[in-house]
Amino acid sequence: MSNDTHRRHDGEFHWQDVEVLAYKQSGEAPFKDVTRQVLFEDPDLGCQWRYFEVAPGGHTTLERHQHVHAVMVVRGHGRALVGAHIHELANHDLVKVPALTWHQFRAPDDQPLGFLCLVNAERDRPQLPQAEDLEELRADAATAEFIRV
Amino acid sequence: MSNDTHRRHDGEFHWQDVEVLAYKQSGEAPFKDVTRQVLFEDPDLGCQWRYFEVAPGGHTTLERHQHVHAVMVVRGHGRALVGAHIHELANHDLVKVPALTWHQFRAPDDQPLGFLCLVNAERDRPQLPQAEDLEELRADAATAEFIRV
Repeated sequence: MSNDTHRRHDGEFHWQDVEVLAYKQSGEAPFKDVTRQVLFEDPDLGCQWRYFEVAPGGHTTLERHQHVHAVMVVRGHGRALVGAHIHELANHDLVKVPALTWHQFRAPDDQPLGFLCLVNAERDRPQLPQAEDLEELRADAATAEFIRV
Repeated sequence: MSNDTHRRHDGEFHWQDVEVLAYKQSGEAPFKDVTRQVLFEDPDLGCQWRYFEVAPGGHTTLERHQHVHAVMVVRGHGRALVGAHIHELANHDLVKVPALTWHQFRAPDDQPLGFLCLVNAERDRPQLPQAEDLEELRADAATAEFIRV
């Protein structure tokens, strides 16, 4: 039975009545092989709860914004750039992305990385790095290798 | 390395720098073998993201409140009463508890039930069932068996 109260997981990180969406609304932001599913969105809830899946070898957009991200890995493992640090992420690890902090998630080459991501329902639009931001990010060798741009 | 950005999971549903808390602030509400961990709580986030674990044979408080719950099972399986329906929950299933709806979660006898539960940061206090509420709930045989009070 499917209803709004109980939505079953199919064993492969899809849920009843949850649509698999394109990751970005616009085609402007560079990313690779990412899907988005909105698990909970409710006028009575101050946050939107999403599931993102990055395919093997893929990555999310390098971006920053005023709103914070609260993240839990629930499938596979991967790496995250958050500010000046690269974090090796295992299943069920927690990541907090503070306000206005550059961040990007990458899946390993051999398996997907799936994570829950909580954001405020009302939030600002992401900012993409400009030439001077990229220059600053690339000043760190590990970051430069991670972002590959 | 532990920091506020990345908190590692220990493989057994405990996280770095996340305290395992008593489930209820007061001893008044009836429950059995439940722990609570606050995974994300932030002045910049409109919600609080928690992990609850119900030990084998245990159950949460039968209660209702104005604020909604957004739930995902992440450990084991169990059952949930939400309003007039009992739901069999498997790993990664989603449950939404609407406003002012009686609800209770139960673990099976042989393993724990762990779930993520999202609530608004600002929310009302739970209400416990009064005699007339229990009478109404017990009018349904399946519900009566589930709540066992």
